[in-house]
Amino acid sequence: MPRLHPIGTVREGVAGHMTERLVVIGGDAAGMSAASQARRRRAADDLEIVAFERGHHTSYSACGIPYWIGGATQGPDALVARTAAEHRARAIDLRLGTEVTQIDPERGRVRSRDAAGTEQWTGYDQLVIATGAVPVRPPLPGIDAPGVHGVQTLDDGEAVLRGLGREGVRRAVVVGGGYIGVEMAEAMLRHGLDVTLIDRNEQPMTTLDPDMGRLVRDALEGLGVRVVSGTSVRAVLTGDDGRAGAVATDDAEHPADLVVLGLGVRPQTGLAAEAGLPLGAHGGLLTDRAMRVLGTGNVWSGGDCVEVLNLVSGAMQHIALGTHANKHGRIIGINIGGGYATFPGVVGTAVSKVCDVEIARTGLKESQARAAGLQYVTAVIESTSRAGYYPDAALMTVKILAERRTGRLLGLQIVGREGAAKRVDIGAVALTAGMTVEQMIGLDLGYAPPFSPVWDPVLVAARKAADAVAADSAAG
Amino acid sequence: MPRLHPIGTVREGVAGHMTERLVVIGGDAAGMSAASQARRRRAADDLEIVAFERGHHTSYSACGIPYWIGGATQGPDALVARTAAEHRARAIDLRLGTEVTQIDPERGRVRSRDAAGTEQWTGYDQLVIATGAVPVRPPLPGIDAPGVHGVQTLDDGEAVLRGLGREGVRRAVVVGGGYIGVEMAEAMLRHGLDVTLIDRNEQPMTTLDPDMGRLVRDALEGLGVRVVSGTSVRAVLTGDDGRAGAVATDDAEHPADLVVLGLGVRPQTGLAAEAGLPLGAHGGLLTDRAMRVLGTGNVWSGGDCVEVLNLVSGAMQHIALGTHANKHGRIIGINIGGGYATFPGVVGTAVSKVCDVEIARTGLKESQARAAGLQYVTAVIESTSRAGYYPDAALMTVKILAERRTGRLLGLQIVGREGAAKRVDIGAVALTAGMTVEQMIGLDLGYAPPFSPVWDPVLVAARKAADAVAADSAAG
Repeated sequence: MPRLHPIGTVREGVAGHMTERLVVIGGDAAGMSAASQARRRRAADDLEIVAFERGHHTSYSACGIPYWIGGATQGPDALVARTAAEHRARAIDLRLGTEVTQIDPERGRVRSRDAAGTEQWTGYDQLVIATGAVPVRPPLPGIDAPGVHGVQTLDDGEAVLRGLGREGVRRAVVVGGGYIGVEMAEAMLRHGLDVTLIDRNEQPMTTLDPDMGRLVRDALEGLGVRVVSGTSVRAVLTGDDGRAGAVATDDAEHPADLVVLGLGVRPQTGLAAEAGLPLGAHGGLLTDRAMRVLGTGNVWSGGDCVEVLNLVSGAMQHIALGTHANKHGRIIGINIGGGYATFPGVVGTAVSKVCDVEIARTGLKESQARAAGLQYVTAVIESTSRAGYYPDAALMTVKILAERRTGRLLGLQIVGREGAAKRVDIGAVALTAGMTVEQMIGLDLGYAPPFSPVWDPVLVAARKAADAVAADSAAG
Repeated sequence: MPRLHPIGTVREGVAGHMTERLVVIGGDAAGMSAASQARRRRAADDLEIVAFERGHHTSYSACGIPYWIGGATQGPDALVARTAAEHRARAIDLRLGTEVTQIDPERGRVRSRDAAGTEQWTGYDQLVIATGAVPVRPPLPGIDAPGVHGVQTLDDGEAVLRGLGREGVRRAVVVGGGYIGVEMAEAMLRHGLDVTLIDRNEQPMTTLDPDMGRLVRDALEGLGVRVVSGTSVRAVLTGDDGRAGAVATDDAEHPADLVVLGLGVRPQTGLAAEAGLPLGAHGGLLTDRAMRVLGTGNVWSGGDCVEVLNLVSGAMQHIALGTHANKHGRIIGINIGGGYATFPGVVGTAVSKVCDVEIARTGLKESQARAAGLQYVTAVIESTSRAGYYPDAALMTVKILAERRTGRLLGLQIVGREGAAKRVDIGAVALTAGMTVEQMIGLDLGYAPPFSPVWDPVLVAARKAADAVAADSAAG
């Protein structure tokens, strides 16, 4: 029977002032941003902050792990935005290696267990649930064998690097062709490995339409990655030493000295579900615009464990991305701190790269538009990142989806080389503003030969999309 | 007495169809875009197109000239987007070396003189005035001496290159620290010259506020350019050979084997003024949103000879920039072609670079905001182009102006290294949409470690600006 140490909630601070307690579950981006922001607005005698983190790091960049593994960046310390010591110096009572095992919203307390197995209840006046996401790990034979790696935590990164350091490692199989998959394919290439990427879909990078995903596939193949698509992984086959030795798909076996899983993540909301808090169709917590969990008064949530409103589709969505987590945390901290801030929703922007191929998307792809009941026209163009006559002008392909009749921008996808990806921000702002592609044609974007052709590629695509809208309308 | 050959206006085409004639004055971006777009929509038997160009090139990128001179790009042919032959192949009757000397809107005709001195009247049904801009060339002693160069036409570029090829050229003086000035300073550095840049203002690059211009000055000085500011040029001093030998300012003489003028341009609207067409306070033609000259039915104008509406200040402005010229030309061509398109106005976006220092601005700088009667707060931040731990994360300084009380974005300025300049597009779209800095904080911009910190630098500036708006409001 574990020992339980109750801690009271509201205590007297200086001069009869009531000190509130904020409890944060999860010491990464959303949780610690909330804690930091709340602390900035409320001193320690006004707000006590206790943060529980199961692992041994705070505020680290999971997005940086593939680059660390690939040797492009230092790690793991460099990936930590703010250390435990820094948080503690700001009067945040951070409990590393301590897992919250239960939330009791009725009585306003959480139960935790530290590394020594000591359990206790901690009362809260305000609670932030920032439990993040867990990698999808299908229950396949051999999936837990040594040599099979997720890429979610700094510990995962260390494990992959140890795996790469083993004798005779020369073949890597990456399972999943999304962001983590293609970034890990690059990392494995940088270690000189023979890389196979397996994806069950027609093309990798299914956050893009298949015609754009095809360009990513071509790029991967051009870099020497063997892309196996349209087939599912059935098992990880192990050798005599019990380690992963191959990945079996529907119709083939792919030898592997190292297997990397990049199958996406799902919200880690088991605790919240047990506490009766509301989850959406994607398993994420549901919040209002201020990031307060629906139906509660003092429970907040943000980051990879919540669902967010997609402003283009009007539907809830789960997107695990550090930039959202940081925004959520800041908003929660401001609101707990007595200010006012809201999260408007997302438009679905994401950028990535594999070696020098840049990949970007925002808004809806075709299947998402259809699922939202939206009808659309498309335009695809090729242009260059700089004036055509300027050195290193690099080709890029830009695809736009625009709504039928209204011409409203619905989505933008870009695959190209240097200078391609961040152009997606033009679309992100235009989507947020509800602009039509006709309006976009008039946008006063930065032009000079080293930075853009006289018509920015996004505007060329907008022009073609506006023509498509007009032609479609004319046709009825 | 020159010979005058009248040409009738409306002639019978095939099957009794009336053929209209479009006359274009000026064979560069705006004029030839208009001609091309009109031709795309109306065949030669429906619309005859005659284009007069005083010089010997069409559709060239004036913006590319500094890079050609500096050796970064090929030239001059590479700078020509569409040659005379290509235009003629599309049934555009292009008259090179032929200057229009008079516009007669009453009778719908223009008078021209070709290289041989032959004059004639040409009637029009539709007229496009695309006469561009001329470099400002103050009437100073010695300003027309050999060795003093403008940088406006391909011929200018050839002349500078010939000047650079002369024996013993080692000192260049660039007069004017705007875009052309700093780009030409870079070009001269690339030729190994000792470069002095003279600007009468407190800091170079006065399209930025002085605090941001200071960063450009520091960068120029870091590159070895001698920046002389706050002093005016009084004369170009010539040597025994009659060539420029030094530039005299209020208080010093600066030896120069080559002098480059980068003092900006003014609309070339003498013909239009003589014809009684309406000019604005900056000397540019005034048009409606469809780019039709005010008070006319069939006269259109665009590019460097018109004034444009600044959507942020609400005032008319003269901005000579190829990207606007191309947009204007397209809009004019669509409207003449029987379609419908309008130019909404500009937000004042401009990007440039000097060596690896990128410079960008959009919206209003402080003095422009004041001139528009707008009160504002400012925020300046420093951040990086990529995640701090990612290689080649480059520092950039971002400045935001936001309106008092409303928090509406008024302006954005960026000075930094690789990855800085095109971020200004975020501000350009946000300005067009009338967003507040508080709204900008929520923007879903592309994030991945190779492309951005988790908070894009523009969002960091927006956050600080929103805090400044709130603090200002609280203070009354």
